[in-house]
Amino acid sequence: MSELVLDAPFYLPAGDEVELFRAAYEERIPVLLKGPTGCGKTRFVEYMAWQLAHELVTVSCHDDMTAADLVGRYLLAADGTTWLDGPLTQAVRTGAMCYLDEVVEARKDTTVILHSLTDYRRTLPIERLGVSLTAHRDFLLVVSYNPGYQASAKDLKPSTRQRFMAIEFDYPVAEQEATIIAHEAGVDSATAESLAFLGDRLRNLDEADLIDGPSTRLLIYVGALIRKGVPPQRACDVALVQAISDDAEIQEAVRKVASAVFPR
Amino acid sequence: MSELVLDAPFYLPAGDEVELFRAAYEERIPVLLKGPTGCGKTRFVEYMAWQLAHELVTVSCHDDMTAADLVGRYLLAADGTTWLDGPLTQAVRTGAMCYLDEVVEARKDTTVILHSLTDYRRTLPIERLGVSLTAHRDFLLVVSYNPGYQASAKDLKPSTRQRFMAIEFDYPVAEQEATIIAHEAGVDSATAESLAFLGDRLRNLDEADLIDGPSTRLLIYVGALIRKGVPPQRACDVALVQAISDDAEIQEAVRKVASAVFPR
Amino acid sequence: MSELVLDAPFYLPAGDEVELFRAAYEERIPVLLKGPTGCGKTRFVEYMAWQLAHELVTVSCHDDMTAADLVGRYLLAADGTTWLDGPLTQAVRTGAMCYLDEVVEARKDTTVILHSLTDYRRTLPIERLGVSLTAHRDFLLVVSYNPGYQASAKDLKPSTRQRFMAIEFDYPVAEQEATIIAHEAGVDSATAESLAFLGDRLRNLDEADLIDGPSTRLLIYVGALIRKGVPPQRACDVALVQAISDDAEIQEAVRKVASAVFPR
Amino acid sequence: MSELVLDAPFYLPAGDEVELFRAAYEERIPVLLKGPTGCGKTRFVEYMAWQLAHELVTVSCHDDMTAADLVGRYLLAADGTTWLDGPLTQAVRTGAMCYLDEVVEARKDTTVILHSLTDYRRTLPIERLGVSLTAHRDFLLVVSYNPGYQASAKDLKPSTRQRFMAIEFDYPVAEQEATIIAHEAGVDSATAESLAFLGDRLRNLDEADLIDGPSTRLLIYVGALIRKGVPPQRACDVALVQAISDDAEIQEAVRKVASAVFPR
Amino acid sequence: MSELVLDAPFYLPAGDEVELFRAAYEERIPVLLKGPTGCGKTRFVEYMAWQLAHELVTVSCHDDMTAADLVGRYLLAADGTTWLDGPLTQAVRTGAMCYLDEVVEARKDTTVILHSLTDYRRTLPIERLGVSLTAHRDFLLVVSYNPGYQASAKDLKPSTRQRFMAIEFDYPVAEQEATIIAHEAGVDSATAESLAFLGDRLRNLDEADLIDGPSTRLLIYVGALIRKGVPPQRACDVALVQAISDDAEIQEAVRKVASAVFPR
Amino acid sequence: MSELVLDAPFYLPAGDEVELFRAAYEERIPVLLKGPTGCGKTRFVEYMAWQLAHELVTVSCHDDMTAADLVGRYLLAADGTTWLDGPLTQAVRTGAMCYLDEVVEARKDTTVILHSLTDYRRTLPIERLGVSLTAHRDFLLVVSYNPGYQASAKDLKPSTRQRFMAIEFDYPVAEQEATIIAHEAGVDSATAESLAFLGDRLRNLDEADLIDGPSTRLLIYVGALIRKGVPPQRACDVALVQAISDDAEIQEAVRKVASAVFPR
Repeated sequence: MSELVLDAPFYLPAGDEVELFRAAYEERIPVLLKGPTGCGKTRFVEYMAWQLAHELVTVSCHDDMTAADLVGRYLLAADGTTWLDGPLTQAVRTGAMCYLDEVVEARKDTTVILHSLTDYRRTLPIERLGVSLTAHRDFLLVVSYNPGYQASAKDLKPSTRQRFMAIEFDYPVAEQEATIIAHEAGVDSATAESLAFLGDRLRNLDEADLIDGPSTRLLIYVGALIRKGVPPQRACDVALVQAISDDAEIQEAVRKVASAVFPR
Repeated sequence: MSELVLDAPFYLPAGDEVELFRAAYEERIPVLLKGPTGCGKTRFVEYMAWQLAHELVTVSCHDDMTAADLVGRYLLAADGTTWLDGPLTQAVRTGAMCYLDEVVEARKDTTVILHSLTDYRRTLPIERLGVSLTAHRDFLLVVSYNPGYQASAKDLKPSTRQRFMAIEFDYPVAEQEATIIAHEAGVDSATAESLAFLGDRLRNLDEADLIDGPSTRLLIYVGALIRKGVPPQRACDVALVQAISDDAEIQEAVRKVASAVFPR
Repeated sequence: MSELVLDAPFYLPAGDEVELFRAAYEERIPVLLKGPTGCGKTRFVEYMAWQLAHELVTVSCHDDMTAADLVGRYLLAADGTTWLDGPLTQAVRTGAMCYLDEVVEARKDTTVILHSLTDYRRTLPIERLGVSLTAHRDFLLVVSYNPGYQASAKDLKPSTRQRFMAIEFDYPVAEQEATIIAHEAGVDSATAESLAFLGDRLRNLDEADLIDGPSTRLLIYVGALIRKGVPPQRACDVALVQAISDDAEIQEAVRKVASAVFPR
Repeated sequence: MSELVLDAPFYLPAGDEVELFRAAYEERIPVLLKGPTGCGKTRFVEYMAWQLAHELVTVSCHDDMTAADLVGRYLLAADGTTWLDGPLTQAVRTGAMCYLDEVVEARKDTTVILHSLTDYRRTLPIERLGVSLTAHRDFLLVVSYNPGYQASAKDLKPSTRQRFMAIEFDYPVAEQEATIIAHEAGVDSATAESLAFLGDRLRNLDEADLIDGPSTRLLIYVGALIRKGVPPQRACDVALVQAISDDAEIQEAVRKVASAVFPR
Repeated sequence: MSELVLDAPFYLPAGDEVELFRAAYEERIPVLLKGPTGCGKTRFVEYMAWQLAHELVTVSCHDDMTAADLVGRYLLAADGTTWLDGPLTQAVRTGAMCYLDEVVEARKDTTVILHSLTDYRRTLPIERLGVSLTAHRDFLLVVSYNPGYQASAKDLKPSTRQRFMAIEFDYPVAEQEATIIAHEAGVDSATAESLAFLGDRLRNLDEADLIDGPSTRLLIYVGALIRKGVPPQRACDVALVQAISDDAEIQEAVRKVASAVFPR
Repeated sequence: MSELVLDAPFYLPAGDEVELFRAAYEERIPVLLKGPTGCGKTRFVEYMAWQLAHELVTVSCHDDMTAADLVGRYLLAADGTTWLDGPLTQAVRTGAMCYLDEVVEARKDTTVILHSLTDYRRTLPIERLGVSLTAHRDFLLVVSYNPGYQASAKDLKPSTRQRFMAIEFDYPVAEQEATIIAHEAGVDSATAESLAFLGDRLRNLDEADLIDGPSTRLLIYVGALIRKGVPPQRACDVALVQAISDDAEIQEAVRKVASAVFPR
């Protein structure tokens, strides 16, 4: 499941995140990426893996994920059982970079197995095999989470959290976001700039605490639909208004901003 | 489980949903269909699959559905274990359209596996096989949900939701619904029009926030029972009044409207 | 588990339920039977299966019932695994009538698998086999529930409910119930009439909202005990008063009515 | 697990329970025994099984009991799987009397499988085998519960409950209890009478709603300890005061009554 | 897992508990030991097993313990499955004394299987084997619990509880405890007496309802540390103050008493 | 999984903890280490294992850890099942030191199996094997927990807790911490002293009850980033401010202290 990112992912640095990540990488300091939905954390990790020419293993965490999903498990085979390394164990063995996306979503046993990997020991205990694996010298652990909508019950325990340095992410500034939208949606720069402006306006709406985003991805969808001939207001309707919320008032507020940017 | 829809499903477009879907399909933008019970979302997907001559895989999601139900699992066989692709994996491999009906009903791990499929990566991680599958270029993901009766606890996370453009559905307008009822129930157009009028009246009842629908399907049932000789009021009683609610007051309100349309 | 009902079950129609069911059967409209405890829903289904000379599969639903209990599962055998059809799959394959008693008791995944069976598709998805089964043309789905004591949390979702026409059941009228009691308990018609009168009185008690029933079955038990020589008041005590409730006040109210009917 | 009770259990009838049970038995009416802790319900069933020379299968129900515990399950064997009948299935096949002690403690799926066994069908559906078993003509179902300490959440559903006639049990009257104590504990009749008098006093204590019992069994323990030379007050202390409650006030109340009966 | 206690455990009787236990043993009356943390209940049972030269099986109960943990289970073997007796079944078969420590901690199904073992039947139903095992004539059941910190939700049901006589335990009196400490910690009698005095003072602290103990074991630890050269106040600090509580106020109260006994 | 610590871990004693541990070790008194996140408890255990030249087995406990994870389990093999000792059983057999980190996180059944290991019996019951293992004479049990953020529901039961002597840990004093930071981060002593001073200030912040730490580890991360050329304020931002909290107010308070120590 580990992959070498061969083509440069399209990524525009927003600040010193590339330098910070590189320093952390060289010191093998575990990294926590914090930021809102769809602001580019996953793509940043792929970009850094490409820059550092380092194998990458990505795991999207979820409510029902257990330690076995990360570490590995026995499978029944014709001749008894066979052990199958999980994605984390693979990364630990081969020295890949392991990225656990939305790590707090996982069950508690998964965060605890990260402990000995993220202090001076750099070991991964595999209880089912009865061994403790010392991490390859190139192994680096990267995790992400979105502080915005995590229930407090789902926070990282301090004893886990204080094993990572944390880089904060936010949506790209308007100019940069326009470049991204033009590149990904294939629209002209005027449309891209309007969409980036629209994204910025929506993220600063009075109702902004009621919604999340919009992600850059949604703005790209709007652009792509416009390119396919969908009228701009209708494109905003399906890829922004309806995509962001089911609440009539919030939808009206979003629609109003969109109409101001793309008048009929 | 994937099927090619050979006969044109009977579907009457209500607006630009066919064009929007076609644009999304060409851009491979994941689609979210929002709308009330029985308004035709499932049939619309079958219709589009037929129009685009595209294989379709449909999965009805539910509370106990896990990622394994979608992705696949190992089965014990005489010679160890055999892997069985789940419906989503089948669609990803073969480039079918995959329709997850009422996706928020499923457990959280199922929505998270959709993440890498619905961003620029278009990959499906299959942890049990230790591989990450790149989606066939024709693969398209379509999901649906009913914003009306979803508990907030069962909402899609923003990080999932902002990966889809959203097309809103509603019940057909009266004229169109009459055409559908006549076609499906085999009744004359006068009866069909009365039933469509009745449906419209019920959906705009003062008590409308207490009930859902009625779906076009129930109106078709009434029509079919009338055709079989059941008196119209009695047909309304069993296929509308009793079918919609157990609450005596709501039943009385529904019955009153039905009596006005089909006087004894 | 499917059976052909060979002997006519003893059933006295209370209204047009036989005609309604027959019309639904001919149109293959799924049927929902609503009604209180022990009013004869199960026997009605057996009666209709006999009338229509149609195979019947009955499943009593419960809290822990899962989709696999209905659809089927793999069993370990000497040579790997064997698939065993569940009762619903059997009915779908062979075109039997499938009766799911107290369907809302089952877990949510069981109601969702009914969706594609109860709309124009008439298919049963069997995920474990990777197939979608088209129902035999004679297949009919019948479900029941008791609106009286269902917790709202256990209601059918509208998207499930609006796939059925609904026939309401109630206890038989006194005269009919006397006939049933005489037939089943083997008592003379005077005793049977007294018992039917007693049942009717109890169902209209001021405390009637506190109790359920009594079912016709309990009245038959009283009759049978009287026939065996148990004094009528004592028979009422064990088969009605004690059987209906543990609450001393309710017991007293029931006993008072029973004493009026069967004075010592 | 079925047994034939060979030696007459020591049981003193308190009223017409023997005649009622015999009538129910002859009519195959399912029986529910209601009564407090340790008042002799289990022994009564053994006594009736002996009187009727009928095989008896007893199952103590509990929170974690599932339908499979009653009906049976597949076991892995060298050559695939073997089916093992559960105790209820054994009784249904062989026509034994099946006694489910404290039936409401079991999970809901266990009570639902009793439904078709307790109406005119007298069948046991065994889903895992895909068969529905018609009960042997001698099969009788007997269940018990203690209305005193059942949480309302654990009550029998009316649709289950109204399938049984109910015989109420209580502690034996003092004279009878003395006979039992003398017989079981091997003490002289004066001591036995004192203990029976003590039991009666305790069951009518002001604090009686705070405690349960004492059961006849505890009174027999006191008697046996006295016979072994333990001073009566000390015997009451360990086998009544401490055995009934941990609450200092209740203990004091019980001790006071005991001291009055057995002064130092 | 059953063992014969070969060396006399060091136990000093506090009252008539040895005589009471012997009487219960001879009458095969099940015994419940009640008392606080670390007051010697477990050692008493070992002492009695040694005195009576009776095999002993000890099981520490816990939240996740099920009936199968006590009764036994099937294990997969090369040639199908093999049954492995649990510790209770072993004791029932061989006539050992079975001690279930902190029995209320176990799940409810474990207490229910004790029912038929603790009344006149003396049988253990083993559902998985389909048999009911009659207990060896020497079998005796002993259970313990600590009434002090049991949540009411975890109380024994009366129908379980009233099957045991109950012997109450408390910490040894100061003189006796000094003898125990001297024997176990290897300290001189002056130190042992000071420690016993300290224990007694702490158990009668105003804050005594906030803490449990200290157990005799902790006092022995303090003694052992003193013997190893740790200053008495420091030994009290680590083996009493810190061991009993994390609450600063309670720690201060404990430390004050300790300082009075062992002034710096 | 047991290891012999070959290189002296870098550990600076803060008080008499080394002597206390050595005394406990010689007396085989089980040890509980109490202290905040990242204050060096784990490293202390490794240091003592090295000093005593004793094999060490470390287990990080978590919510989903069961007794089987510690004791062992059966694995399916080609020829039936094979038993695999868990880490605790390994330590008990071979006489290693077993360190259970954050023991209260584990499920209750894991703490109960420690009972017979931590009193005079020194035995480990292995129910699945049907044996009770006497601990090797060199076996020592060490556990840790953080009293700061344990929910009361997750406290150790007194009956478990009063089986350990408890050594309290805190963060190193500033001078010592500076030495550690200089050693681990490779920074000059001036920077190390500033960081130690900063750590001390943060732990005594008014908001200190809202945060945990910072751990020494985070201070080392800051040092390492500074060494790699990251400006000190920025290094504090990512490795302290963002790493400790998501709360804007707390972040501001932390940032203010950091700015005072490392002015721009």
